[in-house]
Formats: sequence, structure tokens, C-alpha cells
Amino acid sequence: MKRIAVMTSGGDSAGMNAAVRAVVRGACAQGLEVLGIREGFMGLVHEHFFPMDANSVGGILHRGGTELRTFRYPDFAKPECRQPLREAFLAQGIDGLVVIGGDGSFRGAHCIDTEWNVPTVGIPATIDNDIEGTDFSIGFDTALNIAVDCVDKIRDTATSHGRIFCIEVMGRASGMLAITTGLCCGAEEVLIPEHPFDINEICTRIDAGYDRGKKHAILIIAEGAASASEIATGMRLILDREIRVAVLGHIQRGGEPTAFDRILASRLGIAAVQQLLGGKRDVMVGLIGGEIFATPLVKESPSVRVILGEYVKLQQILH
Amino acid sequence: MKRIAVMTSGGDSAGMNAAVRAVVRGACAQGLEVLGIREGFMGLVHEHFFPMDANSVGGILHRGGTELRTFRYPDFAKPECRQPLREAFLAQGIDGLVVIGGDGSFRGAHCIDTEWNVPTVGIPATIDNDIEGTDFSIGFDTALNIAVDCVDKIRDTATSHGRIFCIEVMGRASGMLAITTGLCCGAEEVLIPEHPFDINEICTRIDAGYDRGKKHAILIIAEGAASASEIATGMRLILDREIRVAVLGHIQRGGEPTAFDRILASRLGIAAVQQLLGGKRDVMVGLIGGEIFATPLVKESPSVRVILGEYVKLQQILH
Amino acid sequence: MKRIAVMTSGGDSAGMNAAVRAVVRGACAQGLEVLGIREGFMGLVHEHFFPMDANSVGGILHRGGTELRTFRYPDFAKPECRQPLREAFLAQGIDGLVVIGGDGSFRGAHCIDTEWNVPTVGIPATIDNDIEGTDFSIGFDTALNIAVDCVDKIRDTATSHGRIFCIEVMGRASGMLAITTGLCCGAEEVLIPEHPFDINEICTRIDAGYDRGKKHAILIIAEGAASASEIATGMRLILDREIRVAVLGHIQRGGEPTAFDRILASRLGIAAVQQLLGGKRDVMVGLIGGEIFATPLVKESPSVRVILGEYVKLQQILH
Amino acid sequence: MKRIAVMTSGGDSAGMNAAVRAVVRGACAQGLEVLGIREGFMGLVHEHFFPMDANSVGGILHRGGTELRTFRYPDFAKPECRQPLREAFLAQGIDGLVVIGGDGSFRGAHCIDTEWNVPTVGIPATIDNDIEGTDFSIGFDTALNIAVDCVDKIRDTATSHGRIFCIEVMGRASGMLAITTGLCCGAEEVLIPEHPFDINEICTRIDAGYDRGKKHAILIIAEGAASASEIATGMRLILDREIRVAVLGHIQRGGEPTAFDRILASRLGIAAVQQLLGGKRDVMVGLIGGEIFATPLVKESPSVRVILGEYVKLQQILH
Repeated sequence: MKRIAVMTSGGDSAGMNAAVRAVVRGACAQGLEVLGIREGFMGLVHEHFFPMDANSVGGILHRGGTELRTFRYPDFAKPECRQPLREAFLAQGIDGLVVIGGDGSFRGAHCIDTEWNVPTVGIPATIDNDIEGTDFSIGFDTALNIAVDCVDKIRDTATSHGRIFCIEVMGRASGMLAITTGLCCGAEEVLIPEHPFDINEICTRIDAGYDRGKKHAILIIAEGAASASEIATGMRLILDREIRVAVLGHIQRGGEPTAFDRILASRLGIAAVQQLLGGKRDVMVGLIGGEIFATPLVKESPSVRVILGEYVKLQQILH
Repeated sequence: MKRIAVMTSGGDSAGMNAAVRAVVRGACAQGLEVLGIREGFMGLVHEHFFPMDANSVGGILHRGGTELRTFRYPDFAKPECRQPLREAFLAQGIDGLVVIGGDGSFRGAHCIDTEWNVPTVGIPATIDNDIEGTDFSIGFDTALNIAVDCVDKIRDTATSHGRIFCIEVMGRASGMLAITTGLCCGAEEVLIPEHPFDINEICTRIDAGYDRGKKHAILIIAEGAASASEIATGMRLILDREIRVAVLGHIQRGGEPTAFDRILASRLGIAAVQQLLGGKRDVMVGLIGGEIFATPLVKESPSVRVILGEYVKLQQILH
Repeated sequence: MKRIAVMTSGGDSAGMNAAVRAVVRGACAQGLEVLGIREGFMGLVHEHFFPMDANSVGGILHRGGTELRTFRYPDFAKPECRQPLREAFLAQGIDGLVVIGGDGSFRGAHCIDTEWNVPTVGIPATIDNDIEGTDFSIGFDTALNIAVDCVDKIRDTATSHGRIFCIEVMGRASGMLAITTGLCCGAEEVLIPEHPFDINEICTRIDAGYDRGKKHAILIIAEGAASASEIATGMRLILDREIRVAVLGHIQRGGEPTAFDRILASRLGIAAVQQLLGGKRDVMVGLIGGEIFATPLVKESPSVRVILGEYVKLQQILH
Repeated sequence: MKRIAVMTSGGDSAGMNAAVRAVVRGACAQGLEVLGIREGFMGLVHEHFFPMDANSVGGILHRGGTELRTFRYPDFAKPECRQPLREAFLAQGIDGLVVIGGDGSFRGAHCIDTEWNVPTVGIPATIDNDIEGTDFSIGFDTALNIAVDCVDKIRDTATSHGRIFCIEVMGRASGMLAITTGLCCGAEEVLIPEHPFDINEICTRIDAGYDRGKKHAILIIAEGAASASEIATGMRLILDREIRVAVLGHIQRGGEPTAFDRILASRLGIAAVQQLLGGKRDVMVGLIGGEIFATPLVKESPSVRVILGEYVKLQQILH
């Protein structure tokens, strides 16, 4: 192995730069050449390849977003879109590829590995923390801390006015970001796609809380469960209280990565290079129980996440 | 003067607690008794009066929201709602009242002063910074710093994806929060209610920016000018680019007050007590050119804000 | 089991309040009575016991420090100091005790369990992350993020002036906080007590860095390895460059807990109650590989920390 | 006027980049050419001149430190050091110079204006806020907010342990940063060089505070008044209480500028260019009472700062 390439793909998340840095410096330390690819798979279309060395990644460890830029490019999943890009890619003399992104990006990476025969390793990076094969994806801890900070602020105003707040957090089809935000903020209710909820029961519990002397009610709503404004509309039919809506939105994606995400990204970046050098391919590196493991890049039957169930129980005891 | 009362009223803003603390400690230092009133004018309905002393306001200087709680109670403007509350209020033996809030609250305070003959002083506190007679209202600097921090985060993700972001900030009918956020973040465009804008021209300028090599476009939109989603919808008809919407919402209200707001609140709180002791009434204390002045609690003809115009010019040069 | 007590002891760390909340609410959910003990073991001297319920711990989840207050009370390790307190303690009818703190506190807790026959469970909370039997102690993640934020700020000024900075972080005899801070900040050098270092070699590497175009050098120094001012003094004898010293100090202890620490504290607090109810005693609950395990409260032969070695290797590759 | 130059000089402060950006974009908008000078007056020695345009200052508005870098170069005050640099400087064809820094830098700038006959304007930037002719210098608001955030954190740990903390803040010979930090944090005592203090009286007041039920004592000590460790040593001779020392140090210099500093820097940067274009020279632009004024670059008899006295009175009432 002489030359590897690295890209970030899909939605951006804090810590992607730290991962790129670790891949590049880890590869350079082993005497490999490194090419950067700009804008994910879209970079293949425009042949945005450029050489990187240890200095190229100076001063980016703590930066939010991704200096390599990224792109959502679902068409790469279509063979007819993918095929025309093959020749230019192979012409770069790339012996290994590291793709930093989420599930969708890994499906594209899997095609490059299996169809184009370029050994490929994935690094999980998404604020949704919904990737099988790692306890944490890069960017989740940062997004969680941002969401928690926002809810802490909103609670000030909720308490001052005695209001109910319906706060929508990201997470796509996963409730992980919502349930952890709820736990961290002592939310009264958390609505996640993995568990059914009944708006009448919620309203009954909230009313009971006010009767016991609570000064506010905070509902954390996973975007995969419902929209905050839908929930608020439904609650207004039942409760005669002031209800406000907040959608945290894209601020959850950005910002400087937390310490946790910087370390996770550093470990996974180095590990990805080691996998390639060790002859492993078509795998994703992930953190399981504090240690790093390689699992297939594309999983057939994603298992249920045990930890989410534990968090739900904690929330029920502690709220 | 023997006994004064203090309340917070209207929308909450960071620094209200610091102002209450200054009023209470300033009054105690002069040998006055102090009553707190909970939930603004609504506290008059429920007779939520309670004695406060220097210790009552320990540990609240840095807290967001308002420990006295607040309430939007527009009915107090109606004589028939106000009148029944008079007797209970006067029975408290209150010789002076300090009302911490915005324009609406000051109209209520003015009635108490003139109709019930209780000397009343207002302290301007609102994140909108839209009060005539003070260069800054308490909470504006905090809200601005929160908005700036959010836009800094969103720019990370905007640059990573090459996207346009339409970001809506608060401010009611005023563009102050929007124009200052735009200045602080180097926004490409700022839409405020005080100035007309043309969506076609905006799109032309944004396109030109991308042509010059810009990697994103940030539009800051005052809620008084338009909704961010309206603007995004309009732009999508004209531009073939990725556009995202973010509504910062209530996080702008909460959070620990900045140093500026803590000092402003401390100065105005002390000054309000001094006004009452000096026999002034039906006035608002404000900061004009770095010094504290008293102006009528209710102004007849609010003047145009000069500073906003200067900020607009700065934005045009610097963006 | 009918009644348990809870205390915080030793140096404070962010997340202690979240742990107390989880113990209290977890116990109440099981129908137990709870007593709080103020100021750790010193509270036994003054018999500072007071009843707590689910409401007692409202609004403290996100607060730094410890509302139960704490105290360093090494004399409790002496039988002659401990013995006189026994009777008053037993008179409270306490069937179980939860002690939130570090190694020193656990030795005291062990005495209460074994000598006074009161089942006792420890929850590890210290910014040093130096406790055998848990991958993370409560407060470490917060302290690390604060240290990282400080070093990020100092790097701005270091780069502006082209300076060398010797930055001392806490950690007592452990280098965990230092090595992780160094990893997160891309520090040029990290000095920890677990590894020897040679100041001449350090200076040679720093000089080489400047020759390669670096604009600053950041050294992170564990307080257990050396004092930052000692190192700076030593370097000034060798290098003719501007060197500055920063001792981060007590700000590392305080501040609102991060999401990680809030969740860790919540999980461990609930787990401590479960241990007591399950008949376990003289144990500490900890997080090992993402799951919760109970280990002896006092360990005979603390094992070497494997993870630290991994971090040192990462640092050598990535700096 | 065709070509101006801009430099940052002396100690760095947050917002310097925003000021450089405003100078460059303000000048470009008027059709001027701009040269950047690296490392302040030291850049004259090494002839570090380079052309800048509107794009050169993209993406730096929110960055801490100074991208132009800076240097403390007191030798420039000596004619024999200054003189040899004259010819190379004049060879650049510079018609105007903007120097961003503090008092020391302005003395150098004054020499360039008067001796080398190059019209020069100063922009006040220092965290000390000790410059005659402006109510606020660039960087002060950021430094204050950082100091306040640190003290808020330390108060958590102080309260938890019932401790006294002696906290040293920067400010050189000025007490402005100390007194404002004290006001914002409700410090028990503030020691500044402008006012005498008696350590016995301080200890008496602190003891009285504990007797009234206080859980901690926070002393803010201006570096110009005393060192925190000296004060702690003195207090330990008088009081039998736990006393800790914290020196906030260089973190006060760095970090992203606050909104206030970004706006101040933007206004002053534009104003400096306007002064040059308007034929003014040997002046400093400053903010007085909310408006921008030009005052002599070097003042003969600095007046007493009135505002500091007001803050001291506030502190005495409110602490």
C-alpha cells in the first residue's frame, strides 16, 4: 500500500476535521501518501483530488464542520451514476480509501470496495448516533451538549413564564439524541420514534406536575417521532396552558467538537489506517465498550440498540 | 418613603435578576423595606406580595430568566381590569414601585403612578432593544451574543455543504437584534423591518458572491421583516441552490447574562431607587451615551433610532 | 431496607448534584426514605442529617459543585476520630449509605461498612479520573472540556505572539487529564507522571518545530509531573524564546456538568441504589466498557491503566 | 491618498482581527490599496509587508488573537532603533498607517507620524481598558466575560467547600477589569491599584460575612494591586479558614470576541480609514458616550477615569 485517499460525506458533524487529521497524520507516520477528496462522492464527479501531508491538517483539530467539505449525493448509489466515475478514480493510483460519514455514505463506500476493488474503511460520523457497530458516532457528543445547553437556556424562560415548551431535536429515525437530551435536562417528557406515546396521557401527567408545584414542563421531541408544532397543536386542544415551540435545528451540527468527539475521532482515524495496512477492507471501525472493533461496512440486520432502552428506563425514574 | 415594591413584567430577559438584586440591595442600603411581587401585574390579581431583604437576592445575579417570574398581562391596560386590584395594592403600604420590563409593562406602570398615585420608576429590560430613552435594554447584549454564537455554529455547517441559510432572529418590530447579529457574523444579507428589501436583488447578490468564490451565504432575518421560511420559499423560486432555514427562537431569551447586562442591570437598579428617593416618578431610567438619565415612562413620539442607520451602513461596507 | 443516606465527600466535581439527584429519586421510586448528609464525613461530626425527597433535588441536575457541600476530612481515617461519631450515626436508623467521592472518601466509606455494619456503596466522582474500577469518574469529562476550552483560548494568544506556553492542568498523581487535554488540543508536548521526560529533548523538538514553520508550542503539564513554572524556568536556560506559564487551577472543578457527566452520574446513582437493594455492600459502582459493574470499594493492587498508554501513543503520532 | 498599511501591535486582544477586517474592507470600499504588516513594529525590521484585499480578511471576524500576529517591541521607542527602518518603510509608498494596539504602540505610531511624516491613526485594543480617549478598548468586553465565566465556575467549588478564593485578574496598572469582574460576580471584595485597602479590615468583613451565613468569599485582585498569592499569604496569618488562590492568566486574552467587541472593532476600523481620508492624523479613534471621536494619539495628562469610581460605589452597595 502506497497511497490512500480520504473524504467526508453526507451530513457534516463536529469532529470530522479531527478524524481527517488523524487519518492523514496516521498515514504519513507510516510513510503513505495521502490524497484528499473534496465534497464527498461529488468530488469524484469533479475529480477534486489533492495531495495532503501532516501540515495540511494543522490547526483544524478544533474546527467545526469539515474543511474537506461534504455533499449529500444519493445518486452515487445508482450503478449508472457511479460507473462513469470509476476510471478517473482508479487513475489516481489509490490503494485504499477512508470514508468518514454515515450509513448512506457507507453504502457508496461498499460499492467502491467491492466493485472497483479499492480497499475501503468507514469511520462513523453523524450527530444521529444511529450506526450499528459503534456505541458512539463522531459528532453525537457535541450535538448532545449543544442541545442540552439550548434546553438549559429555554428552561430559564419556561420557568419565568410557567410555560410548556415543545422542543424538537434532530436524530432522523433515531431517538438517541432526544432521550439523552431529555435525561441531561430533566425533561418532563421525551417522545421518540422507538416508543409509542399518547398525547392524552402526556397532558394528564403534565397537569399533575403543575398540581404538584412544577413551574414548567419541557418536552423533548425527536424529529423522527413528531414535529414539535404538531405536538403543541395537539396539546392545545387538551390543555389550557401557555405552550411554546422551539426547533433547535442546524445549530446542533456545528460548533467546535467536544473533547469526547476529538478523542473519538483521533482514535478512529488512526484505527482506520491500521485496518487498511493490516489488509482489512470493506469494514467500519467503531467504539464498542471502550475498545475499537471493525465490523462489516454494510450490515444486513441492524440489531436493536440496548442502550436506548436503558436510557428510557432512567428517564422514567428520574424525570 | 418607607416601603417600595419591585416586579418583573412582560417577556423575560437575561439580567432581570441582576436588576432585582440591585433594586433590593440599593433600597436596603437606604433603610427602605422592600416587597417583591411575583408574576408581574398578574401578581396583583393573586396578591403575591412578599418581603425581601439583601439575603433574598443572594446567588441570583448570574441566573437567567427571572426568579420573581413574569407574565404577559395585557388586560391590565383596561381600566375595568385594573380598577379592582387597586385596594389590595394600596393596602400593602407601598410608597414606590419599580417595574422591570418593556414598553407594554411601562404603560401599566404609568397607570399605577398616575391613577393610584404610587410613585413608579421603570427599568428597561427586553431582548428587543426597542425602548426609547436608553441605548441598551437589559438582556439585549446576552440575546445578541447567543444569536451570534448560533450563527457561528451554523456557518460551520453552511460552509461544509456550500449552502444558503435563512436564519430568523427575534426583535419584534425592531431590526436591532438582526442588524447587530449580521454585523457580528459577517452575514451576506440582513433583512430588517426598517428598510425595504427586494428578494430578486438579494438573489442576484448571493449568486455573485458564489461566483466570486464564497462557500456559503448567511441571511439574517428579523422576525419583524419576514419569516425565514417565507424568504427561503421565495428564494427557491429564483435560485437553484441548497437553502436551509433556522429559527433561533426562545434560546435567545435565556441563559446567564453577559457581563454587559449584569453591569447595566446593576447600574439601572441602583438608579431606579435613587430616582424614587429623589422624588422623581413616572419615569424610566436608561443609559444614554454611557450615562444614566431619567425620561418619561411613556413617550408620545418615539424618535427614529440613529444607531440602527449607522449599523446598516457598516453592514453594507463590511459584509 | 427502609432508609438510606447520601453524601458527597472530598474534592468537588461537576455532576455530583446529578448523582445525588439520581440516588434520591431512585431510592424514592423504590419507596425508601432518604437522608442527606451535609459536608461529607464532617457532617457526621455536626450531625448534619436532613430528610430529602424527590422535590429536594429539583433544579440541581445541571448545577456545578455540590449542593450537599463537601469537605476534605482525612482525620476520618483515624479510628480515634471516627469512633465517637458512630453512635449518633447509628441513631439515625440508616440501613444503607451512598458516598459520592474519590479514593480517600471510599476508604472512610469502607470503615463505615465494615466497622459500623452499615451497607455502603461508593460512586466515583473526581476530576482526576484516577479510580480503579471505572473507565470514567464523574466530573472528568467536564474538567477535560474546560481545560480544552482554556487551551484553545491560549493557543490564540500563543500563535499571535509566536510564544511557547507551559500549561499546568490538575490530576493529582495521574496524567489522564493532561494526556487527554493534550490530545484534544494538538499540544506539542505532554508531560505526565507515568512517563519520564527529558527537558533537553523537549527543547530540541520544540526548536525543530519552529524550524518547520510552527507558530507556537503548547506544553501540557500534569501537576503530578512537574509545575509549569519549573518547566518554564528549565526551558529558559536552554531556549532563547518567549515562554509563558498558565496554571488552569480551580476553574477545572466547577461549571455546569457536560452531557456525558450528567448521564454517567444518573446511571451510577440509580445503580448504587440497586446495589444496596440487591444486598451488595462495600462496593463501588463504575462504568467499564459502557456497562455498569460493582467492584470492591477499596482495591488492594490498583492495576495499570491501559487506556493511558493508548493515549500516549496517539499523542506521539498526532501532535 | 492611494495606499495605506495596517498592523496589530503589543499584547493581543480579542477583536483585533475584526478591526483589521474593517480597516481593509473600509479602505477597499474607498478604492485604496492596503498593505498588511506582520508582527507589529517588528515587521518593519523584517520588511514583512504584503498586499491585502477584501478577500484577505474573509473568515477572520470571529477569530481570537491576531492573524497579522503581534510583537512587543519597546526598542522602537529608541530613535537609534527606529531610524534604520525608515527608508524601507517609505519605499513601500504608504500614504497612511493604522496601528491597532495600546498606549505603548501609540507612542511608536506617533513617531512614525511626526518623524517620518506618514499620517497615522491608532485604534485602541487592549484587554486592560486603560486608554484615555475611549470608554472601551477592543478586547476588554471579551476578557471581562471570560473572567466572569471563570469566577462563576470557581464560585461553584468555593461554595461546595466553604472556601475563600483569591482570584487574580489582569489589567496592568488599571483596576477596570478587576472592579467590573467583581461587580458581575458579586465578589465580596475587589482590590484595585486605584484604591487603598487594608488586609485586616478585609479579613474582618469576610469573617462577618461567614457569621451572617455566607458560604464562601470571593476576592478579585487586580494584578496591579497585588498578587493573589501575596494576599492569600497575608490572610492566612489572620484567618483560620481554607483559602485558595487562582490566577486567571492568559486565557483572558484569547477566545472568540464577544458581540460587543466585534461591533466596536468594526466601527473603529471604518472610522480610522475615514480619519485618514479626511486628512486627520496623529490621532486615535475612540468610543465616547456611544459616539466615535478622534483624540490625540499621545496624551499629555491622562485624566482620572470617572467610570471606575462609579463602579467602586456600586460594588460597595451591591456586594
